[in-house]
Amino acid sequence: MKDNELNSLVKSIITSYNENPAGDGSPVGLPNRAEVERLIALMRRLLFPGYFDDAPASSTDLGWRVRDLLLEVEHRLRRQVALSMCLDTCGKMCDESYERAGDICREFFAKLPALRATLLTDVQATYDGDPAAKSVHEIIFAYPGIFAVMIYRLAHELHKLSVPYIPRMMSEHAHSVTGIEIHPGAEIGDYFFIDHGTGVVIGETAVIGAHVKLYQGVTLGAVSTRGGQRLRGKKRHPTLGDEVTVYSGATILGGDTVIGRGSVIGGNAFVMQSVPQNTSVSIKTPELDFKLRDIERKA
Amino acid sequence: MKDNELNSLVKSIITSYNENPAGDGSPVGLPNRAEVERLIALMRRLLFPGYFDDAPASSTDLGWRVRDLLLEVEHRLRRQVALSMCLDTCGKMCDESYERAGDICREFFAKLPALRATLLTDVQATYDGDPAAKSVHEIIFAYPGIFAVMIYRLAHELHKLSVPYIPRMMSEHAHSVTGIEIHPGAEIGDYFFIDHGTGVVIGETAVIGAHVKLYQGVTLGAVSTRGGQRLRGKKRHPTLGDEVTVYSGATILGGDTVIGRGSVIGGNAFVMQSVPQNTSVSIKTPELDFKLRDIERKA
Amino acid sequence: MKDNELNSLVKSIITSYNENPAGDGSPVGLPNRAEVERLIALMRRLLFPGYFDDAPASSTDLGWRVRDLLLEVEHRLRRQVALSMCLDTCGKMCDESYERAGDICREFFAKLPALRATLLTDVQATYDGDPAAKSVHEIIFAYPGIFAVMIYRLAHELHKLSVPYIPRMMSEHAHSVTGIEIHPGAEIGDYFFIDHGTGVVIGETAVIGAHVKLYQGVTLGAVSTRGGQRLRGKKRHPTLGDEVTVYSGATILGGDTVIGRGSVIGGNAFVMQSVPQNTSVSIKTPELDFKLRDIERKA
Repeated sequence: MKDNELNSLVKSIITSYNENPAGDGSPVGLPNRAEVERLIALMRRLLFPGYFDDAPASSTDLGWRVRDLLLEVEHRLRRQVALSMCLDTCGKMCDESYERAGDICREFFAKLPALRATLLTDVQATYDGDPAAKSVHEIIFAYPGIFAVMIYRLAHELHKLSVPYIPRMMSEHAHSVTGIEIHPGAEIGDYFFIDHGTGVVIGETAVIGAHVKLYQGVTLGAVSTRGGQRLRGKKRHPTLGDEVTVYSGATILGGDTVIGRGSVIGGNAFVMQSVPQNTSVSIKTPELDFKLRDIERKA
Repeated sequence: MKDNELNSLVKSIITSYNENPAGDGSPVGLPNRAEVERLIALMRRLLFPGYFDDAPASSTDLGWRVRDLLLEVEHRLRRQVALSMCLDTCGKMCDESYERAGDICREFFAKLPALRATLLTDVQATYDGDPAAKSVHEIIFAYPGIFAVMIYRLAHELHKLSVPYIPRMMSEHAHSVTGIEIHPGAEIGDYFFIDHGTGVVIGETAVIGAHVKLYQGVTLGAVSTRGGQRLRGKKRHPTLGDEVTVYSGATILGGDTVIGRGSVIGGNAFVMQSVPQNTSVSIKTPELDFKLRDIERKA
Repeated sequence: MKDNELNSLVKSIITSYNENPAGDGSPVGLPNRAEVERLIALMRRLLFPGYFDDAPASSTDLGWRVRDLLLEVEHRLRRQVALSMCLDTCGKMCDESYERAGDICREFFAKLPALRATLLTDVQATYDGDPAAKSVHEIIFAYPGIFAVMIYRLAHELHKLSVPYIPRMMSEHAHSVTGIEIHPGAEIGDYFFIDHGTGVVIGETAVIGAHVKLYQGVTLGAVSTRGGQRLRGKKRHPTLGDEVTVYSGATILGGDTVIGRGSVIGGNAFVMQSVPQNTSVSIKTPELDFKLRDIERKA
């Protein structure tokens, strides 16, 4: 590219920035998606010691490992949280946000042992529910449902601490890796099992009990979002009681829709009404047309 | 592995290359998927300054940033375009292709400011349409729909410039990251919003108006591809007018199928016929079977 | 974080490890997901020489390339296989497993030429079946179906050699990248084509003939997994004969369900019974409600 070409190109792109700024275009430091992904990898090593490390964890070096991981997570997380808060408030990098971010990290860390216990109930539910699972190790190494639910549980804690941006960046990383989208605002009980998972969508105001099982392609969604931003904050997504199972491709919509404890929603069902306890809901025996094909191929 | 084992293994694999070459097996340099992904990351930094950078963008260094990014994109893109053209034509690395690739980069760069303006209409449509979106920043950082649509808009420009391979490698990167597959040949208007997105498929000859909204699992597909390569180039995918909404899991098939302006296609609908303007199409009130479950569990 | 805070945090997390160990918590070296992904990238370069290399493959250096790749794959694969076997048996890094892993690598390598020939039938089926495919090169570079099927064919060989963990870690990498989940235990014939692919699930005991074509969102699944671990090893997933096509969103369930040779299962069909040869199965002409929308928007 010749110098004058380059110069005029640079000028036209900067003009485009000025004419069409994205967001408010302010020159604050911004939280960083790649950094958020790094944080997820670090936290995973903290929650499942040895499973994602380069060298085996031993009881003698466990203290050092945990300390190192915590210090690195704190350093990076605090910075991302502070940048997110600055972006939402003052528009520059301020000390108040950095202070507050330190408190948030402290509160977040205090939740980790309980979060870890809950996550292990999810691992157990996965093992109990899937005959193809050979061991708990396999689930931790390979199952996308556990990865997505781990990220959801971490993001949900940050969401409850009112951290902007980071929880959604985390949940969209899970979505990208697993095809499972769980909004950090959703409430989900213990022993949660998502099998296969691709295409699952769990909306911001969904409430899910304990021992719930979802299969691939399940949507817990809103009836209509035609109202757009006017609907913000309203309960738009369904409530599932304890021990509910939802088979693949089923869609359950609406903030007033409640699926009662122990009920089972069949594959591909489309549910916009509440369902009582211990009820099986299925689409009417699917009517199919069978016809002989014209044989169009040779041999 | 012992030397003689290794030697015979190497021989058997090279024999397999000779007996079963992939493609025409010619020793030309080939375009590179990892390099294409690097290009997408660079272009994203150009389109959304600051959002994906390591250090905040400031008005004083913006000129340098843009210049650096443009020079790097030009260097890498020109090489990939040239390799793609060589692969499709002469089968060796030729100067003619490299020359032509330079022109193509120039034409592509000239489109960037307009493309950026269009992309910001997509961001706006996403904000307006999703009550869970807290700000425009969140959409740029986290929303998979915007990432997929950004890549589509870039790939579509290269497709129009008849660049082989690279546009499809780009769209499949988007597909991998987001679960959204948009063929670079599709035509899509302004203010395009894909919500959630996993499982969306938009075929090569689809035509989509402005202010269109698609949800997860929507297919804009062909009725049958039994004809295989004989169908190449035919319009096989549907046309959607302005302000059409298609809810999750709906399938719209066929090159002659036209969805009229302002119409709404309901969740899971299966549409193979045209739909007039301002029409709501939905599957007949889904009939469901409810039955009490045998209580098989204690407590 | 102050020292005493950090110390008590470290202590509480180590307490959580002791109270809630994941798996059996033994300090063996563990197989590593990142390493498995590296292995897949190396094997892909072996199977498709030149397509994923930084420099073009030429006939003069092919021998060296293949030798280098084989040596690296053997070194890394043997280690992962050995660690997996140790984890499942003795719980420490033992020489017996490392020996056995060497044999397994040897048997695996001997299968590569035949595996490569089969994989090229899959590439051919993809080209023949997709009018949007411009060339075989494009399929190798960009098509997610080929990436997923390549990984399935590699993982299936390791599965047959009774390697634990690694096959599932491989198939879940494919799932993450492509949205296509194929359990390594499934049996799949030549000329296999998955188009688009997001949301496809193929269960552990599925059996698929030659010249079969699947579209996005197809599930070959189990009727119910309520039995959990008691069902392990049973045939729970369907059998598809040669030349079967299954269109997008269709679900076929059950270990006794057999789809006869040459049959076609229509989009969104839900099939829990066997289907004879050469039969078209489709959902009854989908009944749709059309109604005029209230015009709620201006202009």
